[in-house]
Amino acid sequence: MICENIGVNDAGHLTFAGQDTLFLARQYGTPVYLMDEERIRYNCRLYTQAIAEAFGPGSGAHYASKAASFKHIYRIMAQEGMGVDLVSPGEIATAAAAGFPMEHSCFHGNNKTDWDIAYAMDMGVGCFVADSITELEAIHAQASKRGRRQKVLLRLTPGIDPHTYEAVATGKVDSKFGVAIETGQAEGFVKAALELPGLELLGYHCHVGSQVFDSEGSVYHDAADIMMAFAGAIQAKYGFRMEVLDIGGGYGVRYTESDPYVDIPANLNALAAHLRALAQKLGIAMPKVWFEPGRSIVADAGMTLYTAGTVKRIPGYKNYVSVDGGMSDNPRFALYGSAYTVLSAGRMGQQAQERFDVVGRCCESGDVIQPDVALPQPQRGDILAVCTTGAYNYSMASNYNRIPRPPIVMLSGGESYVAVRRETLEDLLSCDV
Amino acid sequence: MICENIGVNDAGHLTFAGQDTLFLARQYGTPVYLMDEERIRYNCRLYTQAIAEAFGPGSGAHYASKAASFKHIYRIMAQEGMGVDLVSPGEIATAAAAGFPMEHSCFHGNNKTDWDIAYAMDMGVGCFVADSITELEAIHAQASKRGRRQKVLLRLTPGIDPHTYEAVATGKVDSKFGVAIETGQAEGFVKAALELPGLELLGYHCHVGSQVFDSEGSVYHDAADIMMAFAGAIQAKYGFRMEVLDIGGGYGVRYTESDPYVDIPANLNALAAHLRALAQKLGIAMPKVWFEPGRSIVADAGMTLYTAGTVKRIPGYKNYVSVDGGMSDNPRFALYGSAYTVLSAGRMGQQAQERFDVVGRCCESGDVIQPDVALPQPQRGDILAVCTTGAYNYSMASNYNRIPRPPIVMLSGGESYVAVRRETLEDLLSCDV
Repeated sequence: MICENIGVNDAGHLTFAGQDTLFLARQYGTPVYLMDEERIRYNCRLYTQAIAEAFGPGSGAHYASKAASFKHIYRIMAQEGMGVDLVSPGEIATAAAAGFPMEHSCFHGNNKTDWDIAYAMDMGVGCFVADSITELEAIHAQASKRGRRQKVLLRLTPGIDPHTYEAVATGKVDSKFGVAIETGQAEGFVKAALELPGLELLGYHCHVGSQVFDSEGSVYHDAADIMMAFAGAIQAKYGFRMEVLDIGGGYGVRYTESDPYVDIPANLNALAAHLRALAQKLGIAMPKVWFEPGRSIVADAGMTLYTAGTVKRIPGYKNYVSVDGGMSDNPRFALYGSAYTVLSAGRMGQQAQERFDVVGRCCESGDVIQPDVALPQPQRGDILAVCTTGAYNYSMASNYNRIPRPPIVMLSGGESYVAVRRETLEDLLSCDV
Repeated sequence: MICENIGVNDAGHLTFAGQDTLFLARQYGTPVYLMDEERIRYNCRLYTQAIAEAFGPGSGAHYASKAASFKHIYRIMAQEGMGVDLVSPGEIATAAAAGFPMEHSCFHGNNKTDWDIAYAMDMGVGCFVADSITELEAIHAQASKRGRRQKVLLRLTPGIDPHTYEAVATGKVDSKFGVAIETGQAEGFVKAALELPGLELLGYHCHVGSQVFDSEGSVYHDAADIMMAFAGAIQAKYGFRMEVLDIGGGYGVRYTESDPYVDIPANLNALAAHLRALAQKLGIAMPKVWFEPGRSIVADAGMTLYTAGTVKRIPGYKNYVSVDGGMSDNPRFALYGSAYTVLSAGRMGQQAQERFDVVGRCCESGDVIQPDVALPQPQRGDILAVCTTGAYNYSMASNYNRIPRPPIVMLSGGESYVAVRRETLEDLLSCDV
């Protein structure tokens, strides 16, 4: 199985977090997002413990909550001692409503409006990750108006292409995010930050991409080389000492059996050693290091259950199984051609003789959950499980075809409870005049 | 301009439906979807008048409401004498809440659940477009339970590839939709429908694709050839006379200046003549013909206004303008690489010296509205307009990055009014426990 929280019970039914998925499908209906709370906590502790040991006090992990943002997840993050990354007033409002200690949050994004900046400050967001000089000026203006100094990190692009999918490769020079080191523009960005009295510059941020499998973690070492050299040069020229280096996130998670395992603690330890050596070589202090795991906190804690409907065999062409959800709750195949593992929850002991495209119910040919899946004798009414859906499924869900979004059901210690309720038909009409 | 409802006023500001877009942006905030009500009505009448003349009584157009489904659009469709296509209980509930006469609706989709079928029947949907034999049986079961005969059309795949984008090409044999004529399976589908007493078979449905520009409309003629020949063969063998042929939808709309104009009435007239000739040749009656325009009813009636934020120039690479929306309100570039025309609403008289990728505010590199756009000197605070966003923008919108969805503001006769209000931060939390 692609993750230890997936299994098969004596009845031959698929289990998730030790619970019978057919029972959960009956109890909560389909489609439904399941989330294994213990797996989320386990993933958090992988980071927090390894970071504490390898990097020491002041370093830490911020959960990149755009991967899955809902009230309850912020409660879990607070309990696990994680900071959080927030990218919009909506995420800020959600974290605050959950009682998250906002001083441990960072406000990200390539385009913060003046209203966003004012709102974030008033909600007590701890640190702003500034994306451009104009944004620095906008942050400074709001801080000055409130008579305070706002902590900021500067988002820089180290010019690294991690060779992951284009849409999640964010560290290249040619990026909508941040300011490039290579072009010399990053130096002006630092100067601007140092000259604005309403800002307290903590250091630098970079993010080289997502879903990085490189077992040497060399993409992070490359980023560290560039960021530390830049910090050293700035310190020599302007005297500014980088207190924090935020190195982003993105260790890979397993969507299919062929995806490798990443040893996250080993990677973090190797990166710590690399950074210490760099600091010594450059004659600068070892910074506090911040990480931003998102997908690797929640992805393998998630599973989506669907009910199969129409089963179609087109001789000489292809077979199709339609489910009662689709790109409305999981647009990742439509967007990126993402791979997923699909299992027939009630037929785990049966051999598959045929392959099927598992498709959604949306009126669009591109509404595919996963093509070419081996499934044993699918029937109308079967429960199909799509694994590793904890990241970028609920958060990217839409009401396309006016389909209500599924609930999020948390699984913990043999119990289950609703963290986000299912949308109703009335909800769909709530903004209509 | 790509559509007659777009212009420039004396102040050099972009107008839409004759109204100053800068004024509308100030009044309603951004991002905002504007919809030109008179253009919607004009597009409806293009179809209804041409169909009445060319095809006569009983023929007509059903608005494919997945293109843009909200309460007020169904009121307009009712006033314009259009039927509607509905693809989910959510669309059914929305049409019913608007007071749409449900007997003029068709229920579509490749995967209707038993609950959906029961709900649609109880809401009085006029006709079901059945997608498979199992679905026919499910419709029959619910009809029998209610002691009624349910009108049905059978969705068939004529095996035509309209060479549009894969995700909207739905008439091919290899499709999740319908039953193939080529494989012989369609005959069994008809037999099953004729044998189930709870069903009243009206005829056949096909849909060959979307955004068809072919000015001869030859793809519809090809579909008509196949569908009419099939109807003739079935009539000869089983005596069943096709009363209705639903030929789908999909005339192209102009997203950019290089897109051609389609003369829809001329196409409809040519298709009517072609069908009459086929009927005569085959010795069968001319059926009533139904059309399903969606995009071509609403696309050019829509425009999205954004406020520009960060403007970024990366020497030797590219320039970027970020706006205060993105793939959350318009995922079509991310999904399909769709072309759009972007205009600087307040700088219509100025020459563009540079090109920019117009990107969204979502934390994702793939969040692009349109690459490589010529824009005159963009500044933080400028209003940018994206044209032809009336179809598949609001309907595909998400809360990705926890961004509230924009309102829909209708423009009519120099006035404006809200049809769908802007989501609030409270709305985002309404399902959270």
